[in-house]
Amino acid sequence: MIEVEVKARSPPDIESRIIELGGELLGVETHLDLYFSHPFRDFARTDEALRIRIKEEGARLTYKGPKLDIETKSRQELTVRVDDAEALESILESVGFSRAAVVKKRRSKYSLGEATLAVDEVESLGAFIEVELSGDEDWQAQKRVALEILSMLGLAESIRESYLELLNDSGLLNDSE
Amino acid sequence: MIEVEVKARSPPDIESRIIELGGELLGVETHLDLYFSHPFRDFARTDEALRIRIKEEGARLTYKGPKLDIETKSRQELTVRVDDAEALESILESVGFSRAAVVKKRRSKYSLGEATLAVDEVESLGAFIEVELSGDEDWQAQKRVALEILSMLGLAESIRESYLELLNDSGLLNDSE
Repeated sequence: MIEVEVKARSPPDIESRIIELGGELLGVETHLDLYFSHPFRDFARTDEALRIRIKEEGARLTYKGPKLDIETKSRQELTVRVDDAEALESILESVGFSRAAVVKKRRSKYSLGEATLAVDEVESLGAFIEVELSGDEDWQAQKRVALEILSMLGLAESIRESYLELLNDSGLLNDSE
Repeated sequence: MIEVEVKARSPPDIESRIIELGGELLGVETHLDLYFSHPFRDFARTDEALRIRIKEEGARLTYKGPKLDIETKSRQELTVRVDDAEALESILESVGFSRAAVVKKRRSKYSLGEATLAVDEVESLGAFIEVELSGDEDWQAQKRVALEILSMLGLAESIRESYLELLNDSGLLNDSE
């Protein structure tokens, strides 16, 4: 599956802007995201990510492929639910991966048409909004929808860096571990 | 967790011998075991294994560490349940692993005291019995129990090779894929 995603820094009134556009609150989650690296494959350089996300409803393992264009952070995404995040981390470590970073955030999720909007309060980084749609071969059409929603929310920028990359860029990575 | 395990070739009347000793049938399962290898880590050489097991009740990812002694096939074992074996295989392939072998078997599981007995009909290899107990630091005591059960069943040998290694040794690996 291709995850079509655009991201921007979020102004304080973003949630009321979303509701004005017809968005509906789906729920609020806390995420503890553990990112892994491999000595023989530098995911930062290959623009990939391997992550265990722990949230209230359970844990998931996710692989994200390299970004597919220069405007958005759309990329291939593969996910499985797992019943034991700690055992999974031990398995990854046993076969050579190591924990590279931890990202903590509080996510308020809204639905708006076929899109999901995530208003994220990210520890050490601040507030962001992500507009996500699921696509396949036709993901370019979804991309236009995502960029249009960002524009309707009055936001012009599109940040392509992941939270992991932003933490890395700001030299905050060690503090967040 | 340490999986204490002894294995032997199974005579045709093994199930009646187990029942005579007081064993109780827990169930019959079919297993499709997918073993993975990594270009930078030859699990056959390091005596490790990374496996996706698909059975009726669902799928699991398991790591097995190197064997801990020269008499049995006891080793560290880490397992998580996953909700999507196909997506997990895609994730493993995306981060550099590849499917090395497939082992198919029919397993009849019995409980006997604190042990689990698995009577396996393995495709291309034949019938085996495995006596399994779970241990921690005290796994040497469990090991004596496992070897004693094998002896009470009238079996003298203890095969340390996994089914994967046995298939490899017999040159059958390509046929089983």
